[in-house]
Amino acid sequence: MASPRAVILLSGGLDSTTVLAVAVAGGFEVHALSVDYGQRHAAELGAAARVAHALGAASHRVSRVDLGHPGGSALTDPSIEVPTDGPSSGIPVTYVPARNTLMLSLALAWAEVLGAQDLFVGVNAVDYSGYPDCRPEFVRAFETLANLATRAGVEGRRLRVHAPIIELDKAQIVRLGASLGVDYGLTVSCYQATPEGLACGRCEACRLRRDGFVRAGLSDPTRYVNAPG
Amino acid sequence: MASPRAVILLSGGLDSTTVLAVAVAGGFEVHALSVDYGQRHAAELGAAARVAHALGAASHRVSRVDLGHPGGSALTDPSIEVPTDGPSSGIPVTYVPARNTLMLSLALAWAEVLGAQDLFVGVNAVDYSGYPDCRPEFVRAFETLANLATRAGVEGRRLRVHAPIIELDKAQIVRLGASLGVDYGLTVSCYQATPEGLACGRCEACRLRRDGFVRAGLSDPTRYVNAPG
Repeated sequence: MASPRAVILLSGGLDSTTVLAVAVAGGFEVHALSVDYGQRHAAELGAAARVAHALGAASHRVSRVDLGHPGGSALTDPSIEVPTDGPSSGIPVTYVPARNTLMLSLALAWAEVLGAQDLFVGVNAVDYSGYPDCRPEFVRAFETLANLATRAGVEGRRLRVHAPIIELDKAQIVRLGASLGVDYGLTVSCYQATPEGLACGRCEACRLRRDGFVRAGLSDPTRYVNAPG
Repeated sequence: MASPRAVILLSGGLDSTTVLAVAVAGGFEVHALSVDYGQRHAAELGAAARVAHALGAASHRVSRVDLGHPGGSALTDPSIEVPTDGPSSGIPVTYVPARNTLMLSLALAWAEVLGAQDLFVGVNAVDYSGYPDCRPEFVRAFETLANLATRAGVEGRRLRVHAPIIELDKAQIVRLGASLGVDYGLTVSCYQATPEGLACGRCEACRLRRDGFVRAGLSDPTRYVNAPG
């Protein structure tokens, strides 16, 4: 019997790479989608291609979105600084308006073309508690929408949105991926990585990631611009 | 007091132009968004710009989306013919997978940047009864999602999704727009309009539109490639 198809949103970072490993281990024929919406860390797209190949994705595509307006986020608007000091409270400036809604919509469109009923997404409600669109209730609402919005849903082929790391902390995510054989040296999480994929070691994404390896008791394979102090 | 801001999805066709007129008449400062996802009828984008200006939109932007894969629709995939004979049943081949989900997501992103709490969309459940994402339950599900997905929703500034023509037939839509002073000669609905905006007069969109004018007892200002027989 043919493997069921799944579409995964793959940024090339630690979280989505772990989710890809979960989907592959679960026996899906996994089609990876990266979204380029003008984010600063284009190095992630290169990482996504490497990761998709290394972990055995059946295909990898990049959807490009030009919002046509400033994005209102430090990740898309050059006039807003990426913060490097101290944990933020409330909704971070790195929050991109409606990002996960938009990316899941693109994944949904591709899933419908492929006949895939399963979407995988690496949202995380623990480390990204300030992001409205990383919460379980958001994921459930998108799944409800997906089944109303599509041919598959109307015809009774129920769509499922999987967010397998949504309740895990970074150490748990790293342990999960390591147990599935993920080489995190391929991944890029940094908000301001160099084009070669070297991480700054100072932004919130870098701090969260490094803490994950430390707390998991695993060595950190991340390539930094300067070795962290 | 400043007018509340709204974002409208404007294709440049008859339906969304009517909705723009409704939003303007309702006292909103209306920001119009057109989405170019590689559809064949690019003439609509020119019509959208003309319509936005003529009806007094505060701004008009185009978001470009490159899905990175064949669209699985006659409107985005050159290998699928646009049908020209007989009304279709079931979900039409002109259905674009997840189109309204994607376009509303783009509108939601812009609304959050603008601080707009109102989205307007010209979906219609009467003429487009075969499209899953033109139904009232889809619109309600998207509104629920929008309030879970965004800073505005989390902070208690409730987002509303308005679909004022969803239950109207084409004749009612045309009468509504005419009563608000809309010049439908500016609009393009045809699935395969020429770059100059001339309509084929034969596709489903053309047939629905012409019937609307006939049943409303109004003259049809559409510019056709050949005058319809």
